Amino acid sequence: MNTIGTVLRLTTFGESHGVAIGGVIDGFPSGVVVDEEYVRSEMRRRRPGQSRVTTARNEADEVEFLSGIFEGRTTGTPIGFIIRNTNNHSADYDNLRDAYRPSHADYTYAVKYGVRDHRGGGRSSARETAVRVCAGALAKLALKQLGITVQAYTSQVGDIALDGGYEAYDLSLTESNAVRCPDAEKAAAMENLILDVKREGDTIGGIVTCVAKGVPAGLGAPLYNKLSSSLAHAMLTINAAKGFDYGGGFASVTGRGSRQNDVFYNDNGTINTRTNNSGGMQGGISNGQDIYFRVAFKPVATILREQSTVGVDGNDTLISARGRHDPCVVPRAVPIVEAMAAMVILDHYLLARTSRL
Amino acid sequence: MNTIGTVLRLTTFGESHGVAIGGVIDGFPSGVVVDEEYVRSEMRRRRPGQSRVTTARNEADEVEFLSGIFEGRTTGTPIGFIIRNTNNHSADYDNLRDAYRPSHADYTYAVKYGVRDHRGGGRSSARETAVRVCAGALAKLALKQLGITVQAYTSQVGDIALDGGYEAYDLSLTESNAVRCPDAEKAAAMENLILDVKREGDTIGGIVTCVAKGVPAGLGAPLYNKLSSSLAHAMLTINAAKGFDYGGGFASVTGRGSRQNDVFYNDNGTINTRTNNSGGMQGGISNGQDIYFRVAFKPVATILREQSTVGVDGNDTLISARGRHDPCVVPRAVPIVEAMAAMVILDHYLLARTSRL
Amino acid sequence: MNTIGTVLRLTTFGESHGVAIGGVIDGFPSGVVVDEEYVRSEMRRRRPGQSRVTTARNEADEVEFLSGIFEGRTTGTPIGFIIRNTNNHSADYDNLRDAYRPSHADYTYAVKYGVRDHRGGGRSSARETAVRVCAGALAKLALKQLGITVQAYTSQVGDIALDGGYEAYDLSLTESNAVRCPDAEKAAAMENLILDVKREGDTIGGIVTCVAKGVPAGLGAPLYNKLSSSLAHAMLTINAAKGFDYGGGFASVTGRGSRQNDVFYNDNGTINTRTNNSGGMQGGISNGQDIYFRVAFKPVATILREQSTVGVDGNDTLISARGRHDPCVVPRAVPIVEAMAAMVILDHYLLARTSRL
Amino acid sequence: MNTIGTVLRLTTFGESHGVAIGGVIDGFPSGVVVDEEYVRSEMRRRRPGQSRVTTARNEADEVEFLSGIFEGRTTGTPIGFIIRNTNNHSADYDNLRDAYRPSHADYTYAVKYGVRDHRGGGRSSARETAVRVCAGALAKLALKQLGITVQAYTSQVGDIALDGGYEAYDLSLTESNAVRCPDAEKAAAMENLILDVKREGDTIGGIVTCVAKGVPAGLGAPLYNKLSSSLAHAMLTINAAKGFDYGGGFASVTGRGSRQNDVFYNDNGTINTRTNNSGGMQGGISNGQDIYFRVAFKPVATILREQSTVGVDGNDTLISARGRHDPCVVPRAVPIVEAMAAMVILDHYLLARTSRL
Repeated sequence: MNTIGTVLRLTTFGESHGVAIGGVIDGFPSGVVVDEEYVRSEMRRRRPGQSRVTTARNEADEVEFLSGIFEGRTTGTPIGFIIRNTNNHSADYDNLRDAYRPSHADYTYAVKYGVRDHRGGGRSSARETAVRVCAGALAKLALKQLGITVQAYTSQVGDIALDGGYEAYDLSLTESNAVRCPDAEKAAAMENLILDVKREGDTIGGIVTCVAKGVPAGLGAPLYNKLSSSLAHAMLTINAAKGFDYGGGFASVTGRGSRQNDVFYNDNGTINTRTNNSGGMQGGISNGQDIYFRVAFKPVATILREQSTVGVDGNDTLISARGRHDPCVVPRAVPIVEAMAAMVILDHYLLARTSRL
Repeated sequence: MNTIGTVLRLTTFGESHGVAIGGVIDGFPSGVVVDEEYVRSEMRRRRPGQSRVTTARNEADEVEFLSGIFEGRTTGTPIGFIIRNTNNHSADYDNLRDAYRPSHADYTYAVKYGVRDHRGGGRSSARETAVRVCAGALAKLALKQLGITVQAYTSQVGDIALDGGYEAYDLSLTESNAVRCPDAEKAAAMENLILDVKREGDTIGGIVTCVAKGVPAGLGAPLYNKLSSSLAHAMLTINAAKGFDYGGGFASVTGRGSRQNDVFYNDNGTINTRTNNSGGMQGGISNGQDIYFRVAFKPVATILREQSTVGVDGNDTLISARGRHDPCVVPRAVPIVEAMAAMVILDHYLLARTSRL
Repeated sequence: MNTIGTVLRLTTFGESHGVAIGGVIDGFPSGVVVDEEYVRSEMRRRRPGQSRVTTARNEADEVEFLSGIFEGRTTGTPIGFIIRNTNNHSADYDNLRDAYRPSHADYTYAVKYGVRDHRGGGRSSARETAVRVCAGALAKLALKQLGITVQAYTSQVGDIALDGGYEAYDLSLTESNAVRCPDAEKAAAMENLILDVKREGDTIGGIVTCVAKGVPAGLGAPLYNKLSSSLAHAMLTINAAKGFDYGGGFASVTGRGSRQNDVFYNDNGTINTRTNNSGGMQGGISNGQDIYFRVAFKPVATILREQSTVGVDGNDTLISARGRHDPCVVPRAVPIVEAMAAMVILDHYLLARTSRL
Repeated sequence: MNTIGTVLRLTTFGESHGVAIGGVIDGFPSGVVVDEEYVRSEMRRRRPGQSRVTTARNEADEVEFLSGIFEGRTTGTPIGFIIRNTNNHSADYDNLRDAYRPSHADYTYAVKYGVRDHRGGGRSSARETAVRVCAGALAKLALKQLGITVQAYTSQVGDIALDGGYEAYDLSLTESNAVRCPDAEKAAAMENLILDVKREGDTIGGIVTCVAKGVPAGLGAPLYNKLSSSLAHAMLTINAAKGFDYGGGFASVTGRGSRQNDVFYNDNGTINTRTNNSGGMQGGISNGQDIYFRVAFKPVATILREQSTVGVDGNDTLISARGRHDPCVVPRAVPIVEAMAAMVILDHYLLARTSRL
């Protein structure tokens, strides 16, 4: 099921080494001015080959919009777009035809569908996330018109973690380094760690933290389409994502209710909370405070070492990755997390208009 | 949006202190033998008033099945059921009419809908989870016919955590103590911690771990209805849930790909993995290994202490909880986590039948 | 799949002779004043036993609202309700356990599900339409607050058809006779025809025409959730419905474009059309003119004569209906058509709010 | 909402004179052999410029498949495809920027979205049906592997109607004439009528009848996703469709139950019905008999005459169509009706696998 969203819906298609990847954004509201240069700049953030910590693979990632935009504005009709696959070293993947890479989706797709495009992981490749970033860029343009911003950053790589929460940092510094961490010193350490790991032919994981500001109170459709559960769902669809928490999150389990509760107060006519352990969502509905959450990413499964595995014939065998791969997915995951968050929030923004007669 | 699922769908309704809560299970396959005593036993696991660590509130939670079952078997038509609210100390909640409890959903529902049933939290009350447990019991009966089991347990309360993973414990011991922890010693410590916290009028959080065994490879509908993202979504709809991870989860971010990858091998004709850091899901599709994940629960928001807040008039005020409340939601969350997991897995089991011509 | 609608969704459950039938209305906007006496009056319109032309079966059809309404107003949370089955002459249906009634759903349910509640047709019984009428009554109350009315009437029974379109009649006369036809003379003829047919132990069909006034332009979500296709879908879910058309409908095929086109003109500042062969919908979106459509109902399948059929054992056999049945479903279908139309229109009314940023 | 289907879902995008139109087929089962020449032949059936009775506009309609097919077989992943718009006489539509064509969707799109691509009707153009035909061709290939055929034909143009039902004709003759009518004599009369009407600069409507053979009993998901209601919904999304009926349809209202009922009998071990007034569907579920239904199409709204209308400035004005248009949509609607029917049936075929445990 390659569609996500309720009234704003993204449908994606495409394999890593097929003709093209692409998407259809349906339910996108009319009247949004499409800044194509902004879309391109978002695409560049995700694109590989941008720094020493990412793969050297250089994909053009040119988006071609096919519909839904007229004279620079969205029309309310579905926005179709494609990104052609141009840099296909398909031969790099010939060995994947006959064996299953450990901790990849090769085996599960084979079991599920019987037929599979083995090249570069086919449909399960992270290449599909380029489509998400494109759709997310449009969602961010709409949110911007509404005064809502979504910003993510790398908060942990391996065991190097930021000490403070998002409010301790100037997030405008996020793009100033290759790992997308707003703390320059930690960023340098993270970068060194990634390069060390890369030299060993190994990979490492990390955490992306995301903050949405300006989200009005009242978004979220409980009980089974909470804003929080929609975010969890969206984040867990991203390649290599292994966990999600928001507000106090996993750390809150050791606290006490008396200290974790977010006390309301009248802040010159606005109802605010003294703390924000709720991460801006209570009962699954936004409360007007900043929304923030974390997404955990495992070490990339593709390592430049020989590994044991099983072939499509069921026999034990060995496999070695070839080609160009990321030693750590986290820096490039930052714009993907933002994109998914932006789509979820815009979807709920529109849906919330239906709550009252 | 009070419906969850794709081909198996649960729709729920009801407020804490309204006439009744209930649900409709649609798309439930025909031919499942309904063991009503089993349903009752599952309901008892969630019911309050069962031990010193849960609220003294004693709800009957009698399920009345209204449809979809004929002569003891499911018919494939929707299964409607209700649970009447009988033990309504509504007066306990009169103070909620005029003020918003910190870290509850009172404020967000008020902003979203304008009209709200303040009694006991209304729709946002955890009482709704009784409906989930009932539906989950039926899903578990179906899964049992398919050889699939779903079992959850308390793996952490406050800072008291189990040392090992699920495979280190005899999960049949889970129900042998009030906190539902399979390690008797840790269970005793957890129980003492909860009672200490309760004496202070405070609350504490914890973590539930859940394991599904016997799930065949091939379940999950990538990319936007992955088995993993469906579980994340379902878990984050549970009251007080703040986080989800599966397999290696958040801890995996500090590892290396070379050690985290789950190597395949031919295990006497079956393709197995040497480790299971993937938590039984790769590319969002089950791989035949055990599925396991964790859900973090915050300390219950209702504390027996006076707190600052804001009234519906917008002015600062004080609020005190009355009534009977859980000092820790985790023990009673165990059957709820199982119920949601069972429904997600059965839904994907059915959906997976449509993958191939 | 027992749910209909996009943002306003009705889920129903229940068999003819089970414990109860009922429904959950989800996404119903908050703030609608619930006039329970109006709901009851709508229920009475559908209820059997009201006249000589309907079955003598007398069902109480008492609706019990269980949730979603607080102090007389909707809260935006799901509205659960049940109608208990009290007048169960189950013995009337013992013969249905072993044989399939011609042109009923007995055989298809048996093939599809294996297990079936044979009593009174079980899930396939028209008794379920009581749930629709209840939900529709609430939708009509919401529409009334918005200045939108939905009114249906019997326009044909057998070969007795009204000569003119809806605009030729005073629809307030619809309820003045048993067949619900606004033309008194035709109504009398229709009633006589139905009684003749009834005396012969036979049944007859007819057509219901429905008109919605006050629907603003802009409702409908093309291309695959057009207002017209939603109405067609909703109407074809009603028992015994065999056809749907709107505006010029089937009759328009013999016309010419030059005479069928609805020319726009400036009507003192409002854009109106000179004719309305479009039935108020163009490109699947309402254009502000009256919406009107027709639904064809076949003769009731239950006749009071012996018929050949096949038993569940696969052998040829004979079957005779017992019990009390409608000789013509059309008079009682009138409020059902209105109910479904009201829900579709309210759903699209809410959804249309999401079209523009 | 530009998606249709439950487990098999088609999402379409594109405007008449934009860059391209296209679609994503999701949930399409793996293992279907894709005969691209068959797809092209289906595309040719819909393509304009094929005969005197259709528009002279000659669109190439080259389908480019982008994903979901590997080495000639479907992989179970979404099938993305595009059809570039090459023959864009956009200047033909300059007058549509400022005025609303009568009985087109220009006005309703303007009201709904504010922004619109006026060229050739933009999103509301029948050009989008090329996408449906492509998707339907794949669905027909899958159905063929299952022994199911779907065949439509022109049964009426203006007042020239076939005398008998589908079983009276050799449907293999349908493609032997320009109007796609299996009765050569009537076909000639229809063609003459269309040419007469064309000469007058006028247009005319008609009826398409469609038959599906080999559909197994048990397809359809009552109550709100009946096979019959799904077909009605799908057909009413087609441009210019004004009505739908199945089996006895509108004509059945004048009959008697005793003669309309389809009596079951044991046909050498198979349960068949003596007649098929049910059109192969009872209670919304297929019964194993032929499925047949009709779709009414109004006269094309674009006539080659000057018409009164209103401009986007709200003032009365005149408008004249330029360009090349169909005098009767029915011949080209035949493959579109088949395509939609094939997708609906395949969707229900897959969904029906989830009915039983």
